[in-house]
Parts: sequence; structure tokens; C-alpha cells
Amino acid sequence: MSLPFHGPTAGILVIGEEILSAKVEEQNARYLVRELRGLGVAVRRIDVIPDEIDEIAEAVRGMSSRYDHVFTSGGVGPTHDDLTMVAVAKAFGLRPARNPELESKIRSAMGPALHERDLRMADIPDGARLLYGPDGDRSRWPVVTVRNVYLLPGVPEIFRRKFEMVRELFRAGPILTRAVYSRESEAVIAATLDAVVAEFPGVAVGSYPRLDVAEYKVKITVDGRDAALVERATTRIVEGLGSAVVRTE
Amino acid sequence: MSLPFHGPTAGILVIGEEILSAKVEEQNARYLVRELRGLGVAVRRIDVIPDEIDEIAEAVRGMSSRYDHVFTSGGVGPTHDDLTMVAVAKAFGLRPARNPELESKIRSAMGPALHERDLRMADIPDGARLLYGPDGDRSRWPVVTVRNVYLLPGVPEIFRRKFEMVRELFRAGPILTRAVYSRESEAVIAATLDAVVAEFPGVAVGSYPRLDVAEYKVKITVDGRDAALVERATTRIVEGLGSAVVRTE
Repeated sequence: MSLPFHGPTAGILVIGEEILSAKVEEQNARYLVRELRGLGVAVRRIDVIPDEIDEIAEAVRGMSSRYDHVFTSGGVGPTHDDLTMVAVAKAFGLRPARNPELESKIRSAMGPALHERDLRMADIPDGARLLYGPDGDRSRWPVVTVRNVYLLPGVPEIFRRKFEMVRELFRAGPILTRAVYSRESEAVIAATLDAVVAEFPGVAVGSYPRLDVAEYKVKITVDGRDAALVERATTRIVEGLGSAVVRTE
Repeated sequence: MSLPFHGPTAGILVIGEEILSAKVEEQNARYLVRELRGLGVAVRRIDVIPDEIDEIAEAVRGMSSRYDHVFTSGGVGPTHDDLTMVAVAKAFGLRPARNPELESKIRSAMGPALHERDLRMADIPDGARLLYGPDGDRSRWPVVTVRNVYLLPGVPEIFRRKFEMVRELFRAGPILTRAVYSRESEAVIAATLDAVVAEFPGVAVGSYPRLDVAEYKVKITVDGRDAALVERATTRIVEGLGSAVVRTE
């Protein structure tokens, strides 16, 4: 949303009753937020929601209009709780339809072991794009994409493999970050940070107290896309904090 | 939302630019979702959002109206990026106001080391309640609560300590869960699951494929609050799957 620096943004939507019911620990958003940051994409929201069509549709529609890229995790298998394709179709007023390219892939992969139900995986929003990655290797299963929404499976191993196929599509200029460590508490340094925030609207300043380390009390971060600006804001913080600075990085 | 079984629900709102920018791994929602599940509270949504007043206010308002309990994490310190109190006040049309009880706590804790800025921590939504836990020990810092929204700090150690103070407020009848492990794939067992979902609207049936274990292909879960119903639905799945069942638990 209103990040102080420009550049691509993303939302991550985890469709996962298994996370909400504490059956498994969330892995996909945790992976993706690091990957996107490394690519220079600013993640602005992560939502974990249940397998419910209207809730998925509403979340997808909202994220799609607010962020440059949206990634969904989960709900793309053949069982009753796999509702992402139907929900994404609904979000954009599309119909779910059997995709001939996916159907033929499933038929040839399964051979005589095919169950009718396997073909559910070929039912995607009408007009969806199939992305095969930069090498265009069509022997793999593609990433199904609707507008700016990339539909990834919930199984962590496959989630990563699919994201890696398309990751270079999202590479942008890097987000730079500097850190200043303070031996003084947040209340002591707050006025200095206020002044830097006011002087440098083009960077994002974060302040993170830590109780579990002895070396410092607060880690201050300066993020931005303009290297000179990030440096100048960091220098101003270091000057303002004076002897409170433990170190910078 | 439309969980098939009744009982208290919760939403978790993590206010944390540091999570979105991949600087630290999320810990508080991960902890709380397990705690709430153990208490019998069904978490229906987890959102991770930036330190922005309007976005926090909108999320708090939405969750407060949809779930029985809402927990926020983060944004309650004294620096420029600590906006949760102001945002929660805005969500409910309240004014932020200096709370005398919190102010006096801060003054006596800090003594001559007090910085004016420390007193920011006493600025909370007008009309908020201060919860001290079941023993009523008022020497601690209370959990600030507005309507059904419990405002917890982002530092993980303090987040846990504060939640433990109030956790017994949320105890409800347990959510029961059974699991059936299938050696057959989701496509093979999907029709059986459909039939059980249709026959037992009072339980939640989940289907989770696993690639990283050799023992089984799919874990099926049956959740509910009615023990007899959970047992009957589980038995029906076991009967329907026949020789595909590896084991149950």
C-alpha cells in the first residue's frame, strides 16, 4: 500500500484450514516472503483463510486490485475442500472450464490408472494462462495464472518447484536495507527517528526492540530503493543516536 | 465463518512490517493458533499487515464483527511505527486518551529515568479495559482490551507472557480431531470423502496430500465438537476407504 518507496508489490493468500486448525505449520508464505524480498518485490499483506469459496473470492479480488502480484497457496487438488479454482473464477466473474491442454497432460500422465476425478485438476477459470517458465519446457505442470494472480499448490515441495519456474518474471530493482543497533531503549531514540522519518519520506524506517539479546536494545532498519537516500537517512540516525549506537550493518 | 461446528471463533491480526519485509520470521500467530486450538477456539483467519493506521483499523473492524475474539500482535511501543492504539481507536470511533492507571505505572517503573516518550505507552483508546489475569495481580502490565479485541505486543517473549495472563478467559469445549491415513491418492478417495461430507454436515473433513513421507499419500482429518459424530464420520471414512487405510489416529 502506501510504502514510502515505489516498485512492485505483492500479496500472499494462504488457503489452508490445516494452518488455522494448527495441524501443520505454515511454510509457503514464510518461503515466498523471503524470495520476493530477494527479487525486489515488497510484500504488503499475507492472509491465511479457510477453504470457503466466498471468502477466497473476496480476498483474491481485494488483493488483485491493490497489489501488482498475488500468489495463492493451496486448494487446487481434486477433493471437496479444493475450492481455489472455483473461487478465483468467481472473483473475476469467469466460469470454471475444463482446459484441454491440462486434460491431455493428466490423461497421458495417468494412463490406465486415470480416475475420472483426476480430471478435476484440469478445471480452471476460463481464460486462465498456463505458464511454463523461461525455458518453455511443456513437459511439466504449468503455473495457472488469472490476471495478476498466480495459483500455486499447497504442498510445500510443489509450491517451491512451481514458484521457481516463474520467479524471474518478478525480478525488480533491489530493495536496499541498512541497520543501526541501539543500546538505548525506544523511548530514548524515538524523537531522533521521528525527525529522520519526517526528513526522508522516501525510505521506510523500522524500530524493533529485542529482549533476548544482550548486545543492543533496539534494531533500527532503513529500507528503500534509492541507495543514496538510504545512506543519508542511516547517517542521520547514526549522528542523532551518537553514543547509543552499538554498530551498523 | 461457516465452520460446520459451533463454538467460539477467533481472528489473529499481526501488525508487522518486519514480517512482510522478511526481516524476522513470524512467531506470534504460530504460537497463538496452537494455544487457541488447545483451548477449543477455532481460528478462522490470520492476517499480516503493515504499520498503517487505515489498514489496521479496517482489519480490526472487520475481524471484530466476524469473530468472537480478535488478537492483535505488535505496534504498541513508543516509536513512529507504533500505530495500533490509534488505529484501534479509529476502528471503533473512539479517541486515544492517556490512561491514568497506565501513566502511573510507567512513572513509578521508570522513576527518574522517565522519558516523556515513555508515556506514549499510556495512550490507549478511550474506554479500553485493562485485564490483569485471574489472580488480579496489578503489579504487572495489563492486557489492553477494546470490545472483543485483545492488543498484545509484538516482542515474542512479551506476547506469550501477556497471552498467558488472559488465556483462561477463552477456554471452551474442546475441538476433537481424528485422522485416517490413506495409501491411495486424493483422486481415488475423493468420492468417499464427498459422501461423508454430505452425510455429516456437523464435522469438518480435511484432505492433505503428503509427498515427503513413504507411509501414506493422504492424511484425512475429521474435526468437530460432538464426539459421537466425529467417531461416526471417521468410521464411515475407514469403511469407505477399505484396504486403502494405512492407520487411524
